[in-house]
Amino acid sequence: MKEDKKDTAAEILQAARQLFYEKGYENASTREISARVGISKAALYHHFRNKEEILFRICLQAADELVDNMRRAIARNVESGKPLKEQLTDILIEYLRTYMKNENFNKILFHDMEYLPEDKKRVILGKEKENVHQLRAYLASLMGDGAIRSVNPTVLTFSLISSLHWLYFWYKPGGPLTLEDVAEHIADLFLHGLLPREGKR
Amino acid sequence: MKEDKKDTAAEILQAARQLFYEKGYENASTREISARVGISKAALYHHFRNKEEILFRICLQAADELVDNMRRAIARNVESGKPLKEQLTDILIEYLRTYMKNENFNKILFHDMEYLPEDKKRVILGKEKENVHQLRAYLASLMGDGAIRSVNPTVLTFSLISSLHWLYFWYKPGGPLTLEDVAEHIADLFLHGLLPREGKR
Repeated sequence: MKEDKKDTAAEILQAARQLFYEKGYENASTREISARVGISKAALYHHFRNKEEILFRICLQAADELVDNMRRAIARNVESGKPLKEQLTDILIEYLRTYMKNENFNKILFHDMEYLPEDKKRVILGKEKENVHQLRAYLASLMGDGAIRSVNPTVLTFSLISSLHWLYFWYKPGGPLTLEDVAEHIADLFLHGLLPREGKR
Repeated sequence: MKEDKKDTAAEILQAARQLFYEKGYENASTREISARVGISKAALYHHFRNKEEILFRICLQAADELVDNMRRAIARNVESGKPLKEQLTDILIEYLRTYMKNENFNKILFHDMEYLPEDKKRVILGKEKENVHQLRAYLASLMGDGAIRSVNPTVLTFSLISSLHWLYFWYKPGGPLTLEDVAEHIADLFLHGLLPREGKR
């Protein structure tokens, strides 16, 4: 019984996510969400207080996934003893995969998060901050070890994250570059920079 | 007379920009815009067909400004013969100044552009593409000259632009970093990369 309940809630979130993506949060109704799941509106309200709570749970789920996947990716690379470029590439690939897995979510996050009340918005922004902080801590530890130069950690962390986020606006899945290619290019760019290396030309 | 007309149109755009920023495009009315300018609603409609046209003109103005300022910045640096780092820093500063000058506009662009009809949206996106293309052409010419390494130009251009755009989400005017500091840090990061240089430690 408990299992069923959990499944229905997940189905509701899944249907809502798709509907918000298609029509925008504002134009989507709980009636339509429940119709897609094949349950009554009353059954939907058994699981979620209102449409706003559904939006909040969708955002929370995606934000949690990013924080967790990145935490694991950083941990497994720190312990691996692999060369720095491989480590960074692996971490960036994890980020891109998680981020691009649900294009839908990005559209919802960019366009619909404003509909959340301040307290819920703060929870989601808190997760985003957590995500920034753990990447920043990893980069700072590399600086501490002398593995990378000491640069401004805020500028570095945001430049790196934004290079990843911005894919949402330009990356075409199925185009000439795979996500793995992009991660490698970005890791190479950030590690080696643009100036030709002395003695390597 | 013609001068007056132009001033009123500019005042309307200015008031609308502020109002859209405060309340969001959807919640702002042409009645409120005209009231802020101190003209009748009929007078407003003498200048603009409707609220949508006002939104379009606001977006167009800001997009044009970015394209023009960047074109000038690239041209003056290419001709200057200055060291590459100074050139790139100057171009990034111009970008950041133009982009951050009107925080309002960024909010409007991120949140309200979806309200434009497809044909008008395409015009604005065309300007954004023009902006990407001219920066990309500058970077490609540096690669052609051997002034910078040959890297994937798409990844490079978007990484650089996104490092600048993302400031909207984290940069605090009046905080410890000036826009000039940020531009210098980003130029340094992209030119030199993160790995310590041989023989410089």
